[in-house]
Parts: sequence; C-alpha cells; structure tokens
Amino acid sequence: MVQKELSSPLSPEQSAAVAAERAQIQQTRRPTVAALEQMLFQPMPVLDHGFVRVIDYMGDDSAIVQAARVSYGRGTNRVSEDGGLIRYLMRHRHSTPFEMCEVKYHVKLPIFVARQWIRHRTASVNEYSARYSVLDREFYIPAPEQLAAQSTANRQGRGDVLTQDAATEVLALLRNDAARCYDHYEWMLNEEADPTRQGLARELARMNLTLNTYTQWYWKTDLHNLFGFLALRADAHAQYEIRVYAEAMAQTVQAWVPLAWQAFVEYRLHAATLSAGMLAAVRRMIAGETVTQPNSGLSKREWGELQSVLDLNP
Amino acid sequence: MVQKELSSPLSPEQSAAVAAERAQIQQTRRPTVAALEQMLFQPMPVLDHGFVRVIDYMGDDSAIVQAARVSYGRGTNRVSEDGGLIRYLMRHRHSTPFEMCEVKYHVKLPIFVARQWIRHRTASVNEYSARYSVLDREFYIPAPEQLAAQSTANRQGRGDVLTQDAATEVLALLRNDAARCYDHYEWMLNEEADPTRQGLARELARMNLTLNTYTQWYWKTDLHNLFGFLALRADAHAQYEIRVYAEAMAQTVQAWVPLAWQAFVEYRLHAATLSAGMLAAVRRMIAGETVTQPNSGLSKREWGELQSVLDLNP
Amino acid sequence: MVQKELSSPLSPEQSAAVAAERAQIQQTRRPTVAALEQMLFQPMPVLDHGFVRVIDYMGDDSAIVQAARVSYGRGTNRVSEDGGLIRYLMRHRHSTPFEMCEVKYHVKLPIFVARQWIRHRTASVNEYSARYSVLDREFYIPAPEQLAAQSTANRQGRGDVLTQDAATEVLALLRNDAARCYDHYEWMLNEEADPTRQGLARELARMNLTLNTYTQWYWKTDLHNLFGFLALRADAHAQYEIRVYAEAMAQTVQAWVPLAWQAFVEYRLHAATLSAGMLAAVRRMIAGETVTQPNSGLSKREWGELQSVLDLNP
Amino acid sequence: MVQKELSSPLSPEQSAAVAAERAQIQQTRRPTVAALEQMLFQPMPVLDHGFVRVIDYMGDDSAIVQAARVSYGRGTNRVSEDGGLIRYLMRHRHSTPFEMCEVKYHVKLPIFVARQWIRHRTASVNEYSARYSVLDREFYIPAPEQLAAQSTANRQGRGDVLTQDAATEVLALLRNDAARCYDHYEWMLNEEADPTRQGLARELARMNLTLNTYTQWYWKTDLHNLFGFLALRADAHAQYEIRVYAEAMAQTVQAWVPLAWQAFVEYRLHAATLSAGMLAAVRRMIAGETVTQPNSGLSKREWGELQSVLDLNP
Repeated sequence: MVQKELSSPLSPEQSAAVAAERAQIQQTRRPTVAALEQMLFQPMPVLDHGFVRVIDYMGDDSAIVQAARVSYGRGTNRVSEDGGLIRYLMRHRHSTPFEMCEVKYHVKLPIFVARQWIRHRTASVNEYSARYSVLDREFYIPAPEQLAAQSTANRQGRGDVLTQDAATEVLALLRNDAARCYDHYEWMLNEEADPTRQGLARELARMNLTLNTYTQWYWKTDLHNLFGFLALRADAHAQYEIRVYAEAMAQTVQAWVPLAWQAFVEYRLHAATLSAGMLAAVRRMIAGETVTQPNSGLSKREWGELQSVLDLNP
Repeated sequence: MVQKELSSPLSPEQSAAVAAERAQIQQTRRPTVAALEQMLFQPMPVLDHGFVRVIDYMGDDSAIVQAARVSYGRGTNRVSEDGGLIRYLMRHRHSTPFEMCEVKYHVKLPIFVARQWIRHRTASVNEYSARYSVLDREFYIPAPEQLAAQSTANRQGRGDVLTQDAATEVLALLRNDAARCYDHYEWMLNEEADPTRQGLARELARMNLTLNTYTQWYWKTDLHNLFGFLALRADAHAQYEIRVYAEAMAQTVQAWVPLAWQAFVEYRLHAATLSAGMLAAVRRMIAGETVTQPNSGLSKREWGELQSVLDLNP
Repeated sequence: MVQKELSSPLSPEQSAAVAAERAQIQQTRRPTVAALEQMLFQPMPVLDHGFVRVIDYMGDDSAIVQAARVSYGRGTNRVSEDGGLIRYLMRHRHSTPFEMCEVKYHVKLPIFVARQWIRHRTASVNEYSARYSVLDREFYIPAPEQLAAQSTANRQGRGDVLTQDAATEVLALLRNDAARCYDHYEWMLNEEADPTRQGLARELARMNLTLNTYTQWYWKTDLHNLFGFLALRADAHAQYEIRVYAEAMAQTVQAWVPLAWQAFVEYRLHAATLSAGMLAAVRRMIAGETVTQPNSGLSKREWGELQSVLDLNP
Repeated sequence: MVQKELSSPLSPEQSAAVAAERAQIQQTRRPTVAALEQMLFQPMPVLDHGFVRVIDYMGDDSAIVQAARVSYGRGTNRVSEDGGLIRYLMRHRHSTPFEMCEVKYHVKLPIFVARQWIRHRTASVNEYSARYSVLDREFYIPAPEQLAAQSTANRQGRGDVLTQDAATEVLALLRNDAARCYDHYEWMLNEEADPTRQGLARELARMNLTLNTYTQWYWKTDLHNLFGFLALRADAHAQYEIRVYAEAMAQTVQAWVPLAWQAFVEYRLHAATLSAGMLAAVRRMIAGETVTQPNSGLSKREWGELQSVLDLNP
C-alpha cells in the first residue's frame, strides 16, 4: 500500500534526541539481539503522522527455553533444539515461558485507535497527558483508498472503497472539522497568554478535540500478551488503522525472537480452530463423503467459515 | 452544585425497559442487600446526559468476613464482630477478602472521561461499539460554574472559575463544534440511505466526533479494586467530570457494604500516609519543639502537604 | 469411576451450618438461576476428603447477551436468539461478555493440587491460613486404581496402573508418612499445651506436613477465566487429581449458564486447533491425495496429533 | 544473624554454567546499570540451600522518568532532577512509570515459602516441574535461633526462641521426617529402575514430600509490583523465611534503581498511614493536649499502633 507521507514522523529535535540515544553503546552481560538492536529507538512510520519505535527489550529466544527448563545457564544455544521446544510450547499453549520476554514501545497513534488498543489490559501504559500538556496539531486523515463504505456482509468492517468524488467530500469534512476544533482548543487554552482574556484549563479544553487527533504513549508488555495482541490486531478482520501498527510491531518481533515468531505464525496466526461440528464434517470429507451445508449440520455462517479455512469453493 | 438537566437521562423506552426489569422479583439463597436492591437498575444522573446504574452485585459485608475465615456458614452476623474484623482487614491492607464482593455498573459518560476511567485495568468492560452501531447525538457541555482556568499552583487541575463572558464564549464553541462534528458524522454515515451517495463505514466516520461525545459501557469490578478507583477518583484532586461518577458510585457502595465503606473512609479516604521525614517532624512537634520548614528537612512541597494534613496554618 | 469414600466430606457441625445457610431464602431483583440455586452451598465430594461447593454467583446466560449489547433491559429472553449470539461470541473468542458472569467456590483440596490450581492467576483466593490456624488431620490417599507408573510415551503423565502388590506397598508408605508427619506437626505445635514443654509456632510447624495434606480456600473468578481453567484442567492430559475438581465444577457451570456451556463444548472443549501445516495436509486429504507422515511435512509428533484429531488409524 | 551453611548453594556444574554466562559480554544500546551487571547471574545465598539470582533486567531510574514524560530521548540524566520527579511519583502513588522497569530472578526456595510468594499474582512464573522431573534431596532445616514458640501477642507470628533442648527435639523431627519422606519418594519413583518392580508416576510420588522441600522457579515482575512485594515481605511482620528472600532482593533493587529505591524507603517502607482517628489524635497532641487511649477514641490496638509509629512509650 502507498503511504506517501510516511517519511518523517519526528521533528528535527526529536530526531536528534533519538540519534543521540542510538549513539550510546554500553556493555552488558544480558542476552542481546543484534537485529533488534539495529532497530532500537528508530521510529517506524505508521499512518500519516504516527509511528512505533522499540524503546527497550528483555530476553530472546533462548530466554524462553531457559525459563521453560528453569536452567542455570543459557542452555544449548543449538537453534534446532531450542526451536523444537519453542514450537512444542506454542502448540500446547504454554504461556508462561513466553511471558519471560518483555518489550517496550513508544507509539504515536490517533485517539480512536488508542481506544481499541487499551482494551488489551495486561500491559503497562504511560500516555502523554492532555490534563498536563498540550497535544500537537496532528490529526489522522485517511488516504483516499482507505475510505470505504460500511460492509454489507458484516455489521462491522468496511466494504467497497468510495468513489473519488465521495472521498473528496469526506476528506474535506474530516480535515476542516479537525482543524477547526483544534484551533478552538488552542484559542480556549490561550497558552500564548493573551492578557485580555482567561484561558481554559487543559483538562477541559481537550474535550473539543476530534477522535482522530494523535496522542502518544509508552506501552510495555510481555511476549505472550504481545502475541495475543498481534493475533487479534494483525488479523484481516482488524480495523486497518490498528492493523498497520500491529504489522509494524510484527516486524520487530520477527527480528527479536525469530524462532518464537515462526512458531506463532505456524500455530496461531496461520492456524485455525475447528469446532466439534466442523471436525465431524472434515472427517466425513476425508472418508470420501460428499458433505454439503445442509447435511453438515453446520449453520450457513459456520459452513462458510469452514469452506474458507479449507480453501474450497462454495 | 446545581445540575438542572439531570432529570431524565433515559429515553421513555429505556425507562420502560428498566421499570420492567425492576418489576421482576426472584427468590434466591444468595446474600441479598435490601438497600442496594432498592437502587438496582435505577439510573443515577451524572453530568448533563450521563448516568450510573447498578446492574448486579455479588456478596455483602458478611461475605468479606466469610472469605477471610474460609468458613462453612454465613458466620455470626453479629455486626460488631464483623465490623471489627473488616476494620482490621482494611487497616492492614488485606485485599483478598474485599475481592470476594463484585459489582457491575452500566455507565453513560463522555469519551474523555472514559479514557481516564479505563486506566483502571483490573475490571471487565463491554463498551458500546461505534464500529458496529451509531452513537447518540449527546455531548457533555459543562455547567458555566465548572468552566475554570488552568490552575497556577499545579500543572494539572483547575484554578479560578471563568467570568460569565469568557464562559459564554467557551460554551458556544464547545456546543457548535460538537454539533457540527456530529452532523457531519451523520452525513458521512448516510444511515438514512440517501441512494445518490455512498455512506462511510462506521469505524471510520466515528473519528470525526469530539471527545465530549457520550459513550456507554458495562463495567464490572470487585470491591477491592473499586475502593482503589474511589480512592483516586473520589479524591479532591481528581478531575470534576470523573469525580461526580465516583461520588455516585460511592453512594451505591455505602448502601451495599456499609461496614466496609466505613472502614474505607476511616483507613483510606480520610487517612494520610506520612513519609519517614514527615513522621520525624511530627515526633518533634509532639515533643514540643518548634518545627519549621527549613529545620524540618522537608521540601517546601512536602512541608505544605504536612501542614495541610495536620490542619495547621503556615 | 468408583469413588467409594465420597459420602461425607463435612463434619456434622459443618453440615448443619450449610443446611442453615441453604434454608435462608431472600427476594432479589437480580437474575437468578434455579438449577444453580438448587446446588448452592451443597458440597460435591471430590477425591477422598475434598469437595467443591458454589458459594455465590452473579449473572446468567442473558447477562452475557446484555453486556455484549450494552442494553438497558434484560433483553429478549428468547433462548434461540441468545444462544446464537453466545455461540458467535464464543466462536470468535470475544472474552469480555463472558467476564460479566462471576462465581465463587469453596474448595477443599490436597496441597499439591492447590499448587497447580493457583497458577491460574486471574482469580481471587482466600486460603485457610496455616500460619494462623491448625490444619485438619486429612491427607489424600489415592484409590488403588489411580496408582500408575510413569508414562513411557510422555515425560509427564501416567502409564500403566500398578499391580496390586506394588500398589499396596505404595499406599502403605503414603499413609504412614503422612500420618507420622502430621503426628509430629501436632506434637511440635503442642496446642493442647503440655506445660512441660514449649510449642513451636504454627508458621514453622506446618513445614513438616506432606504435600497430600488437605487445605481449603474460597476461590472466585469470572466465567471467561473459568472456561480457561476448565479447558486446561478438564482435559484428558490434566492430572487426574485436579481433573476431578474441574469435572465437578463443569457440572455447576452447565447448570448455571447452559447456553454458554454448550458453546464452550462445541467451540473449545471438543474443538481442535490445526496448525498451518496440518491444514495443508487436510486440504490434500480432502482432495483425495494419499498423505503420509513423511510426505506431509509434519513432524512425527504433530502427525500423530493430527491422526488423533481426525480419528484416523496410523 | 549467622547462616553458616550459606557458602555454596550451587553444584560445581551449576557454578560453571553461571560463570560461563557471566563471561559473555555483549554490546547494547539499551540502558545499562553497572552495579546490577556486577551482580548478574550470581546467586545470593538465602536460608540453608536457597538462593536468589538476577537473570535479566530492563530499564533503570531514567526509564521511569522517560516514561512519565513520554519523551523522545533518554532525558536529562541530571540525577537531582530525575530524583525529584521519582520522589514525586512515589509520594503520589503514580504506579505506571515504575511498571516500566522489569526484572527476572531465579529463586530456590522451600515449598511452603513458594506458597506464600505465589500469592503475588502480577508476576510471571516458571516453576521446576515435579510432574516432569525429580526434585533434589534438599530440605529447609531452620537454624536453632529461628525456632520460636507461637506468639502470644498475635495469632500469627513467632514469640520466644525455643530452649536448646526443645530446639534439638524439633530439629531431629524435621530432619528425620523430611529425609524419610524423600527416601520413600525416591523408592516409589524407582528412577534407577530396579527391574523387579514398577515405579510410581512422578506426578503422584511427589505428594509424599514435606513442605520444607526446596523447589525453584524463574520469577519476573515489574518494579511497581516488586515494591508491593517488598513492602509486604521485607516488613518486620513477614515470616522470617520469606523476609530473607525479600532482603536479598532489596539489595538488588538498591543497586539497580538507587533513586527509586530511596523514594520507596522514604515514602513507603519507612512511612506510615495514619487513620482519620489517628490524625485527629496527633493534631490534639501537637496542640499540646494530653491524649490518652480512652480520650483518643481509638481502640486499644490502634492506640498501640499509633504509639509505636510515634515512638512514644505507653
């Protein structure tokens, strides 16, 4: 997908602060992952003004193995053996060894995306406070190809992309409303302190902002809960505006814990759960029987899901 | 404080649904609290269009005692004895017996309040989905006496109330911006299906709403975590717009578990934690010494906090 | 399975306390489930001295629906419609509506079972304190048919049942060691206060007990987390001694929320997750190909798991 | 206190594995704490066979500041400024910035201590599995000066130390019972595979062990929850056998985040919470009034607690 505006989500000062932090190299006895060190602190642009950047991490693939074995040393470091154990743990849904790895992100994201994201409760969050500080003048305005009608198949989700004319109208409304609301927010705050009038408290003025205004936070979680986040948010049914964040984070996970990532893809992301009824239908199909929706005992919706899992044409 | 618009936060149909639910009386072997049954399902108006109503509860004061004792029956039901144990548990920060009581609320609240509220993670939430449904045309517009300037003493919080003229200007902006944004939201949705143009998906259109738009959710937590919520949000430093919700909920807690509530007020809400340095100063004061900020070893800010705890004039 | 000793896990006084509690009937506006009210407070015997009994509950099937819809009234109460929504929520792993139901158990269980159980962290627990009180003289002694050798197929789990002679030897050791350790625990405590010698503090004396000594606790969790518990502990791979508790609790869930239980069985308990590789193999089987372990690309262990899911003979 | 046996909690092979791990030095861009690196992987002996060792950590004092400010760079690194903010955050119970630091320990500890420890739920744990492996022949036998009678002032806790004769008797019982139970555990397991008889499954045999048998685990938590653990377990009212673990961990925290540690000591560990009634009494004392228990309105127990907080003689 084309994301033309992605080039520079940071201001020059912010970029300088990041570069300065990247330049500091320390020595450590802790497990270290070169591929993730490479990415550290660097913002990955997401949407028109957002980003994700890794701030810190703890553990690597071998830390999962070490915890599962409660071992005294770092273990064999034989990739084949570690990979086998990690796949076993993932397949049998052993969650605690994956909790032993931890990662911390700094994320800039529209408020309506932040509201979906925060539903993942097993994480630590420090959000930029609009009671205490003034938010930046930045709003998410979708790319035209992201403007879509309500799905007709689904009560939530998107359907056809809008025509160019319709998109133009929508974008104008989104842009103007966000800008006007922000201008009034600034005016009410009166931070530049026009002495002829009183400013409104920040905790009140913020209520005038639209939900596509950007906020930012530090967000920290463990690998098990991050996989839970990615399983939901990197999925095709997730709203595009959060999925792109999940996709950027997926790249960092792949760099960080390549064996765990591979196991996650094989046993969760590209796996499928078949219900008791679906399994019965599959057994009959394998036995050579002609199974149809009516004789399968499955509802139309479940039958459709099974067809899709099995890559069959209806 | 005057809250003139509080009379009817529900539509006639919603009121009828609530009345129908209230009319159903069942028999149960579970502990039951008459004072809370009285309130059940009934909305308590908060702000201009919001409410809190209790949907369900589990346990009572004696359930706290029963769990602390891991007992076979409901226990003595002697109020004095139960009260003594509950006070002991509260004073010594035993949290698990209070976790044995659970309560569920239905809350209607502005989005910017919901964003503060959700930071309390140990709770279950089902929020009305704006991906799936259309939000109501309701925004929080503060009462004029709630419009205040930024605090000068404090980087977060409110100071002086705005003059009438300033308030009038602010209210006009808030009203117009919220209304215009909502109108455009509706237009983009095109739910009334003007066939000459496409509607925008709900998950996208919602980003045009302002943060004072009302949302609603079912929120369920245990008494220990509810006390944590109330300790922060019923406090004088909490933002007014969430404090009024906490105050309404405090009334329900008082009706539900009067002994635990009393202990909470005595040992947490009206208690104070004194730092090592503050305690040293207090010991000297009691010994009759004249203690001043400079000779106390406390910072100005801590000294001020100590004066305020001790009700002393500076 | 035969559980001869199950008849009376409570003492006469405890039974009287339970009977007294069951006799109290109150009126409530809350949703009530007759089938669960029937079971309330009544101990279900588990193992030789253990039990599970429901102490309290909150919500029912319609509470799940009500929360998912964030509705004002109790909803349609049309079983077919509620069931459809509940199945949808379960199939798509919507967890929060199931969190809206809560249940509290009183459980008596051997310490080594309690140590497995407590790994489920999203629950509230009040355990009988052996720092504060004296534990009862009760140990779990397995029925002979439960004494099995280490599994040879599996590094954890049981294999063949022991011969009668071997079982007799083992049972004698278990009985004698538990009894002797308990006798010394009592002697060290000196609770009957032989004035000629000092007693040892309870918090120390308890360390002499064996891991099959019974403890008890109040344990409270929500339906979503309870399903997580049951999915793991009612599974054939769970250790027998915790599985029997899960099975007893499963009966209470079935009585309490029959629609959610049915959905849980269909979409989780009797469902199976197929990995990307397994799905590829199944697609080829359905297309009529002869798929074998070597040409499937699956490891022997995964191939075995797939055969078992599909009820195929190797 | 004397702990003679503390010298070598690891076997020679385990020590070699630790030494090998300590010898590996990597480069990293992450914040690094020299004083904690020095301790890394090294076991700190606790009790007679236990230990605590730091396996990994994430963040430092400046990470707390950085998260509180949601900043782009590492911040000022001016100790005075960071310290001021950290003290402010601690004093006002801002928990989320402290959650941004994470630490992982490997701990060897008696089972009855593990059972207290696991009550702290907001942590990740991988315990050595006695279903899967065989536990070592190691039991906690208290030093004679730790053998104390039940407290008379308190229904939980210890009072006077036992006389030498009484201690000798108790120690003999503890040693013999643990040893005999372990011998029978080994005999039942039959791991050395006497072919003339069947071994018992590990998941069953373990029930014969006494509660002072050592287990071990990897335990990972964030700094906020670690402070919660230390506030309870490093306290004088905690049982000695868990307190010594908390004290060892406290040393690692002091090395790791010295500013946060100092703030924790000042505002939590050496602070005291005064109830509403206690505050009223203190105000009267400062005003020069003679306050006694009867005229204070406090219960005897609370009055005693206040005297102790104020270092006053009764």
